[in-house]
Amino acid sequence: MATDVLDVIRTKRDGGQLSDEQIRFFVDGYTAGTIADEQAAALCMAILLRDMDPAELATWTQAMIDSGERLDLSGVGRPTVDKHSTGGVGDKVSLILAPLVAACGAAVPQLSGRGLGHTGGTLDKLEAIPGWRATLSTSEIVGQLAEVGVVICAASEALCPADRKLYALRDVTATVEAIPLIASSIMAKKIAEGTESLVLDVKVGSGAFLPELDRARRLAETMVGLGQAHGVRTSALLTAMDAPLGRACGNGLEVIEAVETLYGEGPPDLVEVTVALAREMVDLAGLSAGAGTDPARVLREGAAVPVWEAMIRAQGGDPDAVLPEASIRHEVRAERGGYLRRLDARAVGIAVWRLGAGRSRKEDPVSATAGAVCVRKPGAAVEAGAPVLVLHADDPARIDAALAALDGAIEVGPEPPEPRPTVLERIG
Amino acid sequence: MATDVLDVIRTKRDGGQLSDEQIRFFVDGYTAGTIADEQAAALCMAILLRDMDPAELATWTQAMIDSGERLDLSGVGRPTVDKHSTGGVGDKVSLILAPLVAACGAAVPQLSGRGLGHTGGTLDKLEAIPGWRATLSTSEIVGQLAEVGVVICAASEALCPADRKLYALRDVTATVEAIPLIASSIMAKKIAEGTESLVLDVKVGSGAFLPELDRARRLAETMVGLGQAHGVRTSALLTAMDAPLGRACGNGLEVIEAVETLYGEGPPDLVEVTVALAREMVDLAGLSAGAGTDPARVLREGAAVPVWEAMIRAQGGDPDAVLPEASIRHEVRAERGGYLRRLDARAVGIAVWRLGAGRSRKEDPVSATAGAVCVRKPGAAVEAGAPVLVLHADDPARIDAALAALDGAIEVGPEPPEPRPTVLERIG
Repeated sequence: MATDVLDVIRTKRDGGQLSDEQIRFFVDGYTAGTIADEQAAALCMAILLRDMDPAELATWTQAMIDSGERLDLSGVGRPTVDKHSTGGVGDKVSLILAPLVAACGAAVPQLSGRGLGHTGGTLDKLEAIPGWRATLSTSEIVGQLAEVGVVICAASEALCPADRKLYALRDVTATVEAIPLIASSIMAKKIAEGTESLVLDVKVGSGAFLPELDRARRLAETMVGLGQAHGVRTSALLTAMDAPLGRACGNGLEVIEAVETLYGEGPPDLVEVTVALAREMVDLAGLSAGAGTDPARVLREGAAVPVWEAMIRAQGGDPDAVLPEASIRHEVRAERGGYLRRLDARAVGIAVWRLGAGRSRKEDPVSATAGAVCVRKPGAAVEAGAPVLVLHADDPARIDAALAALDGAIEVGPEPPEPRPTVLERIG
Repeated sequence: MATDVLDVIRTKRDGGQLSDEQIRFFVDGYTAGTIADEQAAALCMAILLRDMDPAELATWTQAMIDSGERLDLSGVGRPTVDKHSTGGVGDKVSLILAPLVAACGAAVPQLSGRGLGHTGGTLDKLEAIPGWRATLSTSEIVGQLAEVGVVICAASEALCPADRKLYALRDVTATVEAIPLIASSIMAKKIAEGTESLVLDVKVGSGAFLPELDRARRLAETMVGLGQAHGVRTSALLTAMDAPLGRACGNGLEVIEAVETLYGEGPPDLVEVTVALAREMVDLAGLSAGAGTDPARVLREGAAVPVWEAMIRAQGGDPDAVLPEASIRHEVRAERGGYLRRLDARAVGIAVWRLGAGRSRKEDPVSATAGAVCVRKPGAAVEAGAPVLVLHADDPARIDAALAALDGAIEVGPEPPEPRPTVLERIG
């Protein structure tokens, strides 16, 4: 008897291993619409609760890649290397890292997504720049990579259509958190994108998608394995996401902080993560040699600023434009004096989201100006009544909901917290 | 924060207990269409793999009942008692049992379904009788119960609409086999039907829905508990379904065998199961007293035949009509002599289904004449080349597919098999 969809679901439901034929049948059928959403939802839940082994995962990922086109970046003329972050609060690393690594000599094809939930999206941030456009054709992408060395844009709908459909489904069926489904979704898109090398920034902590270290590590290992099996040089860093990264959270605010960082004036944790990732990328791209490829030095000297400006201009944006600011500021103050021991990333992310920086549904617009600035970061001394966070909003009605999210998120104590590393582990 | 559907799915996905509010929110929302099929499918798979505890199950069942109308049989004037079978091959028990128990003095409101897959449906069988109709209004049901004492008809669409929708979904998402979902689906319909007492015939063996004894027992215990909690006197018999029940399998063929049994000439296993269930029903209905309520005697004396005829006539059928017969007969013979050790119920069920007696989709028609007659039953002596099964079909192209299903289904050996009981356990 030929494979049918009930066989596929039953096999996984009962803890069995899906055959290559079953996986291809499912992914192709779901992409084509011959397998219904409710059948895919049942399978995703079974995968979440029963897991997939490495052989299943490899076939699943390949089927996702094969569901659409694959970019050919062989004409770019430089080694290609990309980064993917699992998403965090204040995570504007891509905006700095992509031009930085291009300034070191690589081509960075960063096909990105938009934010959903409490973590922001790179495209939403860049759209705070007047005129900048996220949608490019394939020939524009390849041309810009050859000329400027970097592109940050939306992935084409022709790339991994199976993933596009499945991701939207998982989002409404509480099946996002399955490690094999997360890993294959990320890696299929990155492999189809055509990059030769890839660094993964897997966040750990309250503001991360998978807060626990062991699950984050498992996700990182799974993705590194998938990349290597598909001929993409891949490594991963596990980085801290207990507090927001840098000081700025929110679309326009993060662009401003990214530009400051490109000028060599970034906050230490943001610089540390960015440089660590840049070194991985430069290494993987085979560029490690002279001073011009030392990301710390390039960043310190502001040598990536011209690449940033060229990238923004190539996509219609004005890098010199003054970004709009929110009309309302609201300070969140320390209730007592001492040391800031905790500034919960997840709570800040939800507050910023409620202020208007994020969306609940894919079709929602986002505010360019709403957000929050962390005036103090964990470890800093604070006086009673001193501001810790400044909320930015255009709609006063949103402040209360943001404050509710911050209840319990700020912890001040008599002793400074144990210093914690920003880069936790390397896997690769 | 108010309950939302993702909270409900996540709670069960992560092994938690659903609150009453979450269950009501889900069942009401799914019935109303505000919760999507893919969300319900994800929840059903999570329930299948995570289970529900008795408190969740009670609320779930009550929510299913409350999704629609509830019949009021208080005006019937006799104690009401029904039977539900989890379905087997050759299981024509309802056709005999319902008029038999009515002949003993109870009212039997048997709201039934149609066959799907390899087990037959009571309505499909009765529709082999010319003129008989399955659809009655509520007032017709109550009237017929008062006058004739028995009705076998389709459940109204207003009864448990949540179950109707959920059952169709489970059927296409491989989530049928979840014990709490099976139990609540069966019991919600029976409780909404308004019967005072209920006997469950839970089949065990290859032709059963849940072949293993321990799972069948757990289903029986779950359903008995639900019935009792809702004030319905409920008990269950676990009965064997390793081989077809009786000799006839297929719609018209089963009607003929049911009528023979009502005349006191039924095969021993069918009579044994029917009488055991009838005794349970008579007991639960509080009718156990004289000779007129001894089902074995009533059956032996043919005293239920007038009730059967009145029931068929009341629903437009002609009890004296000669049923059509299939044009093609194909004998399946013993390859060697000895004792018939096994005649696999599931294989025979699939063969009969392929001959045209069953349907793959709800909207398919079924054949009144297709089926199989078990000329020998396990334990019988057979000679090499003697017929074991006779297949009945109108379409010669179907014979080969049926024979393929029977590959390995007939086992003949030198020793007779161990005799096995037909009624295995009583739970109540």
